[in-house]
Amino acid sequence: MAKQKKQPRPKAVTPKGFRDYRGVEVTRRADMLAKIARIYHLYGFDALETSAVETVEALGKFLPDVDRPNDGVFAWEEDGDWLALRYDLTAPLARVAAQYRNDLPSPYRRYQVGPVWRNEKPGPGRFRQFYQCDADTVGSASMAADAEICAMLSDVFEELGLGGDYIIRVNNRKILDGVMEVAGIAPDDERTRGIVLRAIDKLDRLGEDGVRALLGEGRKDESGDFTKGAGLSDAQIERLMSFVGANRLINETVEQEKSALTDRDDISPNETSLAYLADIVSGSETGRAGVDELRQIADLLAAQGYGPDRIVIDPSVVRGLGYYTGPVYEAELTFEITDEKGRPRQFGSVAGGGRYDDLVKRFTGQEVPATGISIGVDRLLAALEAKGRFDGVEDGPVVVTVMDKSRIADYQKMVTDLRKSNIRAELYLGNPKNFGNQLKYCDKRGAPFAIIQGDDEAARDVVQVKDLKLGARLASELSHEEWRDQPAQFEVPRADMVAEIAKRLG
Amino acid sequence: MAKQKKQPRPKAVTPKGFRDYRGVEVTRRADMLAKIARIYHLYGFDALETSAVETVEALGKFLPDVDRPNDGVFAWEEDGDWLALRYDLTAPLARVAAQYRNDLPSPYRRYQVGPVWRNEKPGPGRFRQFYQCDADTVGSASMAADAEICAMLSDVFEELGLGGDYIIRVNNRKILDGVMEVAGIAPDDERTRGIVLRAIDKLDRLGEDGVRALLGEGRKDESGDFTKGAGLSDAQIERLMSFVGANRLINETVEQEKSALTDRDDISPNETSLAYLADIVSGSETGRAGVDELRQIADLLAAQGYGPDRIVIDPSVVRGLGYYTGPVYEAELTFEITDEKGRPRQFGSVAGGGRYDDLVKRFTGQEVPATGISIGVDRLLAALEAKGRFDGVEDGPVVVTVMDKSRIADYQKMVTDLRKSNIRAELYLGNPKNFGNQLKYCDKRGAPFAIIQGDDEAARDVVQVKDLKLGARLASELSHEEWRDQPAQFEVPRADMVAEIAKRLG
Repeated sequence: MAKQKKQPRPKAVTPKGFRDYRGVEVTRRADMLAKIARIYHLYGFDALETSAVETVEALGKFLPDVDRPNDGVFAWEEDGDWLALRYDLTAPLARVAAQYRNDLPSPYRRYQVGPVWRNEKPGPGRFRQFYQCDADTVGSASMAADAEICAMLSDVFEELGLGGDYIIRVNNRKILDGVMEVAGIAPDDERTRGIVLRAIDKLDRLGEDGVRALLGEGRKDESGDFTKGAGLSDAQIERLMSFVGANRLINETVEQEKSALTDRDDISPNETSLAYLADIVSGSETGRAGVDELRQIADLLAAQGYGPDRIVIDPSVVRGLGYYTGPVYEAELTFEITDEKGRPRQFGSVAGGGRYDDLVKRFTGQEVPATGISIGVDRLLAALEAKGRFDGVEDGPVVVTVMDKSRIADYQKMVTDLRKSNIRAELYLGNPKNFGNQLKYCDKRGAPFAIIQGDDEAARDVVQVKDLKLGARLASELSHEEWRDQPAQFEVPRADMVAEIAKRLG
Repeated sequence: MAKQKKQPRPKAVTPKGFRDYRGVEVTRRADMLAKIARIYHLYGFDALETSAVETVEALGKFLPDVDRPNDGVFAWEEDGDWLALRYDLTAPLARVAAQYRNDLPSPYRRYQVGPVWRNEKPGPGRFRQFYQCDADTVGSASMAADAEICAMLSDVFEELGLGGDYIIRVNNRKILDGVMEVAGIAPDDERTRGIVLRAIDKLDRLGEDGVRALLGEGRKDESGDFTKGAGLSDAQIERLMSFVGANRLINETVEQEKSALTDRDDISPNETSLAYLADIVSGSETGRAGVDELRQIADLLAAQGYGPDRIVIDPSVVRGLGYYTGPVYEAELTFEITDEKGRPRQFGSVAGGGRYDDLVKRFTGQEVPATGISIGVDRLLAALEAKGRFDGVEDGPVVVTVMDKSRIADYQKMVTDLRKSNIRAELYLGNPKNFGNQLKYCDKRGAPFAIIQGDDEAARDVVQVKDLKLGARLASELSHEEWRDQPAQFEVPRADMVAEIAKRLG
């Protein structure tokens, strides 16, 4: 190949960080997304498909000081305008909500499924093009909109057969604001608020003591590096720790209540949480509003039959607190998987969302309240695969082999007959000379059966059927001698072929 | 708005030539594509989804002399590499077939559905992002592969409810090559061959006489402009005209045969065509091969039960003859629509394809035969809409209105009950103060029913149901007085609400 290098051949590769999806990778995702879309539709959400390309101006990523806006997006100049591939489905929703504000119903419930593109450093399992699946309600300030999103998400998991394997946690950004208020941290003290948010976000890793150190003077890690803290007073720290440790303290309370009661059904974890949170934000108007919003959501969900075993108030949900303005929600799958080091761990988060303002304001100047959820499509699909949802359901096609090139029409007729009975089937279309290649092809296709008809079979109007899955099992279980004696192959009259295959496929 | 122009607001618009799709525009297309994918899958075709972004090198659009490759594609430079959005689904297939050639089964049947992007001047109904839906078989030289594509396309139309409304026409590029050969036009005389191809392509518009003129000295059009012709001799022209006029001559022969026979079933239009074509390419090896390929396809399709009422040999299919190397096919919808000027015309072409070489050769140096079809997704969807396939099947959701803000949980419960019976339903999530706005919202949503429950109804445990579609019909048919006497509104016990709505929705 290197000898005649006049016109070098192009490299057959995807660009760095991109990939292709083949066969079941495509159809499993499509099936999952169709089920999700069915639930969204049932809830009155309307489909939306925005163009993949947006103006950089509409996306809001324009950096006036640089020649080229590439802050995480793929962008290029076209006739003097900067265009870019969308990096999420929320920015295009904002543009649509503004562009069609006179046409769209208000409130506007919409869902969108599709790829987004990020100009970021790719890594293992991290690609520059991936799917998102969002549902948002634009133009409603009602907590019923937030409760509905949580209920819908719960229905999605039930529809996907994940009942009992998920929990949706709900928190409210205003509660932390209230705690900061009663701790005496000024609303405009961005530096302290930033340190507090980052410290709380590290609770999982550092534990309560570590967070406490970061709220005070600072913390020295194992390597000896010192991180300067927020420098708050002990009283301030205790106020904040009542939020940081809320989940542990609430759980302890629930356990105490449980042990003091005979009828355990009387315990309401949500009531305990709400009472606890109302207590720690006592004196803050914002905090009170946050607790009130959480109570409204809890009451609405309880009235619809979504108990705390499915959707629960949980102050430990802090992800995205900085971005959202009211309720926030996060969905976790609770079943265990084995991680790459062989240790069991919970599958974890697959969806998150919350309430946000300023969606349309950038365009129109009018504030429009909105709330919504984004499902991590690849993570959810991986979860369904981990749960074995797709095991053994996707055979390849039945392959009709070609023994005699001059009788292609007869073989093709067999394929047609199979297809007419809704059996996925193929004629071998390669060069039929080497029959071994035909059987190798059947293997590669994952064919459950191969149909064979030579002159002898044709004369007797029968076909040979090779049960390839049984054959593979026999080959792995039996010695070569036994296997030769029990070939997974049988003869069937041509007229009975379709019925026999249909029966065996179940 | 113009007063405070410090930070001008971004414009909420799609880039020029792009558009969004909302509601049924998205779901109808998705439903149609799911039906097509079901047929493709049944035929053993595997799904493929390539990345939207390709290297310009792989796409084959690289222009070494210009700073920027923009020959019809959207392209940009990324870390020294030129990337571009795919402009069709065939170029990515070529890349995939080369990249995974050791993994893929051979032959490789694949289908792909998705958007493609063209950097072309947009026009009415012409957008820079649009859907394609392709199926190709890579690595098979067998005419059975071409016949299969035609049969599959026929099955697609049947699945979409277009039985009797379509015809798939098949031709072969080699026949025109054979005719040119016997007419004495050299294979390397690109200029003459180009003129001949362009002239034949104009048959519809210019008629046989116009084409004849272009094959000879040339032709003066109505405006007086003269187009220089190919300058062929009369004998050469007659040879070529035997191909140009083939369809008319074959049809005349079929009619003659029909009138000479009593049993019309004995007429085989395909046999007549093949005999005629064999005659006009007599003496050319290439032409003979083309006729032989057509005969193989016709025989295979006949054996599978696809008669010439569905798939027919038709020498008038010239579209794309320049690009393809063997069989070419084109699918037309034959029902009449009314064009923008009110004249009836056939709906026309919705899919086309054929056999092509050099698919993978660019990358690997190895020739790989391939054949495939591309469906014009937007045209086919428009056809289904023109046929009324979607009439009256897509109501909006049932809307539960809010009469008393403090009873949201009760209203939400009604919505939940409806959804549990698979009835699409919504709670009104806007500000409930103005009830008129709630009814306007119902209209905008296309709601079939609105549910109303005020204090009085709640006390009696009933709901009012407004039949909005009946109401709209009554309002258009009756005078205001009659309409007021027959309001399309009825009362139903709360416990019977879901069953009553389900019954009325059918």
